[in-house]
Formats: sequence, C-alpha cells, structure tokens
Amino acid sequence: MVAGSFLPHFSNPYLERLEDSAVLTIGKQKLCFTTDSYVVSPIFFPGGNIGSLAVHGTVNDLAVCGGKPLFMSTGFILEEGFPFASLETIIASMAKAAKIAGISIVTGDTKVVPRGAADGIFINTSGIGIVEYAGTLSIKSIKAGDAVILNGTIGDHGAAIIKSREIWDGSRSHFRFGASQRTNCRNLKGQPEHPLHARCDTRRAGAILAEIAKSANIQINISEQSIPVQDNVRGICEILGLDPLYLANEGKMVLFCPASDAAKVLTTMKKHKLGVNAAVIGNVAAGKQGRVVLKTSIGGERIVDLPTGELVPRIC
Amino acid sequence: MVAGSFLPHFSNPYLERLEDSAVLTIGKQKLCFTTDSYVVSPIFFPGGNIGSLAVHGTVNDLAVCGGKPLFMSTGFILEEGFPFASLETIIASMAKAAKIAGISIVTGDTKVVPRGAADGIFINTSGIGIVEYAGTLSIKSIKAGDAVILNGTIGDHGAAIIKSREIWDGSRSHFRFGASQRTNCRNLKGQPEHPLHARCDTRRAGAILAEIAKSANIQINISEQSIPVQDNVRGICEILGLDPLYLANEGKMVLFCPASDAAKVLTTMKKHKLGVNAAVIGNVAAGKQGRVVLKTSIGGERIVDLPTGELVPRIC
Repeated sequence: MVAGSFLPHFSNPYLERLEDSAVLTIGKQKLCFTTDSYVVSPIFFPGGNIGSLAVHGTVNDLAVCGGKPLFMSTGFILEEGFPFASLETIIASMAKAAKIAGISIVTGDTKVVPRGAADGIFINTSGIGIVEYAGTLSIKSIKAGDAVILNGTIGDHGAAIIKSREIWDGSRSHFRFGASQRTNCRNLKGQPEHPLHARCDTRRAGAILAEIAKSANIQINISEQSIPVQDNVRGICEILGLDPLYLANEGKMVLFCPASDAAKVLTTMKKHKLGVNAAVIGNVAAGKQGRVVLKTSIGGERIVDLPTGELVPRIC
Repeated sequence: MVAGSFLPHFSNPYLERLEDSAVLTIGKQKLCFTTDSYVVSPIFFPGGNIGSLAVHGTVNDLAVCGGKPLFMSTGFILEEGFPFASLETIIASMAKAAKIAGISIVTGDTKVVPRGAADGIFINTSGIGIVEYAGTLSIKSIKAGDAVILNGTIGDHGAAIIKSREIWDGSRSHFRFGASQRTNCRNLKGQPEHPLHARCDTRRAGAILAEIAKSANIQINISEQSIPVQDNVRGICEILGLDPLYLANEGKMVLFCPASDAAKVLTTMKKHKLGVNAAVIGNVAAGKQGRVVLKTSIGGERIVDLPTGELVPRIC
C-alpha cells in the first residue's frame, strides 16, 4: 500500500497498524481481514500459478497474524480472449490450494476488459480469519533483545519467476537452475506454539525488515551468513547482480520472539516441513533507530533499506 | 461470476447462494461478505468516479442482504504512469463515500504494472457487514404472488457513462442530455422496515431479474409502463437502440415482498430520497418457469433474457 497517499484519507486505527491483516472486533469475535491483488508474470511458473499464489498469499497474510483462515473472496479481471483452458487450470489450482488451507471461497466477481486493457488475468483475493491466538502478534510488540527468525530459505519464488520468464521469452533458459528450482509458495496456517511478539509474511525479506524497523522504530541487526539461501538461488543472484534479501518469497515468514525462547521456537519450527531450514538471522538492538543493519559475510556492515523501485517487478 | 467455470471447483453452500453477498456465521455472529472489481471506463463521469463507485457498490451489495456495512478492503492495480493527481482525487472520493456509508477502509494493497499491462486503474473492494435483519433476505424466499418493486429510475448510470465516453473521445457530446444527467451511484445502507422476501442490487435490471427467475425457478411478470425511466435516458435509448432494462444502474435495488405489504413498503420507500421514484413493476406468477415476461407498452409480451454479451461494457 502506498501509505503516503492512502493513510491521510482512510485514517483509522485498523489501517494504521500497516500489517499483513487488519485485526477487527465484531461483537465478541476477533477477526482478521486482508486483501491482495495478484499480477504475477508469467502466470504459470515452476511449482505454481497465479491462482495458487493468490490463495496461499491471502491465507498466509491471515495466518501470520494468528488468524485461522475461514473465508475468501475472489475477484477476476480477465482480458478478452484469455484462454478458457488456462482459466480452468487456474481455478482448479485455487480450489486445491483452498482445500489444503481449509478456507472456503464464498463469494466472487469476474470482469472482462477488452483486449489490451489488461495483461491476461489479474486476481484479487480477500480473506477473513478468526483470531484464536491469545497473545497479540504485532510489530508494536517487538522488544529490544528479541531474536529474529526466518522459517526457511529466501528468494526461491523470485528465482523461479526469473527462470520462467527466460523460458516464456521463447528461448531456452540461459541459466542452469537445479531441477528443484520451484516457488516456495505454500500455506503457513497454524497457530504459534510458543509466545511470540510478531510474525510477518516475508515477501521480500530486506524490504519487510526495513519496513518493520521503520514502523516500530527499532534497529534490527542481521547477519548475512545466517540467512538461509539455496545454493542455486545464491548463484543466480551473483550472476545477475541481485540481492536475495530483495528477491521474492512466498510461504516465508519472519518471527520475533524473546531471545530466551529462540532455541525452543527454532526446534519446534524445524519439525515442520516448512521450517526445516529455519534459522535465527539476527536480533533487535537497543535504542530507537528505525533501520536494519546487515553484517556482511566479509565482516563489513551496511544498511538494508527499502528499495526505491522493484528489483524484479510483478512477482506476485 | 462466470458460474459455470467456478461453481464446480469452489462448490460450497455459501457460494451457491449466488447472491450479492455471502452470508456467513462466525461464532455466534452472522456476517455478510462481498467482493467486486471495478474497471469502469472512463474513470471519471458525471456524479462520480471509479473510487466512489467501488465504495458504493460494495456497500450496496452488503446492504441489500440486510447487512450493516462495517469494514472494507481496497486493492488497487495501477498502470505505470497513472497520474498521481487522479489517484489522489479517487482516494479522496473513496474516503468521502466510505464516511457517508459509515464503513471503515481497514486494509489495502497496491500493485503497479508496466505501461500497457492495465488500462489506468482497476479497483477491487471487498466488504464485511454484520447481518442485523432478523428475517432471511434471499431469492430462495421469494414466493408466488410477491410484488416486485424497484427503488427508482433505471439506466441513469449507464447513460452517464455513455455521455462521458462521448466527451472522453475528444469531441463534444453528440447527445443533448439534460444537465442533471448523472450516475445514480449512491449508498443504500439501512435495514428493511417491513418484512421482505428478497432485496437485490440491480446493476442491470433485466439481467438481474432474469438471473433471479432462473436461480429461484420462478416466473416474474413485469410491465414496461410501470418501470421508472428518466425521459432523457429513454431518449438516448431510443436513439441508440438500447434497452433501459440492460443499461447500468448503481444505487438501485429490486425488492420482493408479499403483495399485501406492497403499498406500505412503497409508501415507506417514497419517503426516502433514494426511493422517491420507487414503483411496483410487476409480480411473481404461480408455477416454476425460470423466466421474466415483459408486458410491453403496446400490449405485447416478450421474454427478458440474460444478455449474451454486454450492451455497454465496462460500466462498473
């Protein structure tokens, strides 16, 4: 969300959280509510497509806030002439992803625009979850000394999209990715088993950490060596001059918990198939700095800032 | 929604209602949930713009189901280079429309796609409301003998869009619309004061009546003479060969109530500024026919069917 444009107009305490989901109270029920539009290009990529991405993304935005995903809406914008067979495949992927996540697609809308007025297909998904987690998961709860934990390797989704684009352009890929190079788009539903301070969907690790640091006015120190990155993703980043911290993820989250709980949180996470590569990547420093400091592999330090543009656009 | 493609995959009792909103139960709370994407062209038109339309449309989809609109999400897809001033105007209109409707915009998302990958701006709005109306407003509740009531003149929004396109094309409008030719986009929030069987948002009167007749498997008889249409809208329809029944509306709804209550429902509606032109336009016949029969002004009869294409595309 372009916060600068929207906040002055829409200002209210729900929106001002600026987190993955709004947490709402209706009657005695605590709910979370989120929305995302998907414009990924290409729409089919190794391990997924725009449809599965749209379901997993919204499920994850609910889940990281401690919500149990319940209901989802879908809004399709189709370009005239979009192949019916592709639409069927995408819808089937959405149904499968929704079934796995235990979320029901209960309402929808489809608009068709003339050829040239959209790029094939765009999908919006909005989701409602029930907040069952007793604690308050919020970046406002992060404290100095907290451990910063990633649930797995970063950049897999971005690398898979880059690989697809190479093929999409008609030629064979110039890059020799491993056969296993696939998006990491999965659903993260599940309640925290240990007390946490915050949990955030990690679409671009560097950007989300910088946003959290600024929003919560804290300094986050991370160590390059601790950040889990697959070898083939690191390779493609080195060749193309990309930074894994800014490459896209799906199904990845960053957690903040008291340092004293970090070991047991990590042990629990590693038992889960989506947390096998989980790692403590840093900690929250004392003081109000609003920045992320990366200790590089060669011993230097640099600020990890919000990117001014998109490194690889249309990754979701 | 392209029901034929989606229903076999997403099948669940909420979606199968195929009404303006899904009615959900979370805990002890009865909620309604709806989504719509807006791709209207042009984005500014007399009386509104894509932003106010997106808020009113979703508020109305909640309201017709007996829901009190509470929370809304916004998903923006912007074409690179979309003027910032236009975005600001649209956002300000959304904030104003939301304030009038008493709904809070609590979560949002913005995607930017390269020039040529979208037509300026598309907006998705999803909304959550609390269902306070004790009865069940559903097309499944419609009974033979029910009166069919429209809350006002039809086709005003469609005519306003046609007028804007004339101007948008660079030339002066060829049509001499009255100065008052504006969209009828307004919010319809408010609970029914009399027992009703169903209430539906009436984007295209003919299409929605045909959908209801098919879905509820009833025959709806309507009389052309009873249908409220502004003189200048009727004029433009005659010149261009358009049917007001298929021209777009915003802020219009069709109600079904027992015939014995029709007079008092109409009296109540006429007291409201958005119901001044309300009229009984027909009734529900006995038997299961799944069709709408129009008695024409010259005394003939014709079937009002679902249009095979869009008469005037991109009206919302």
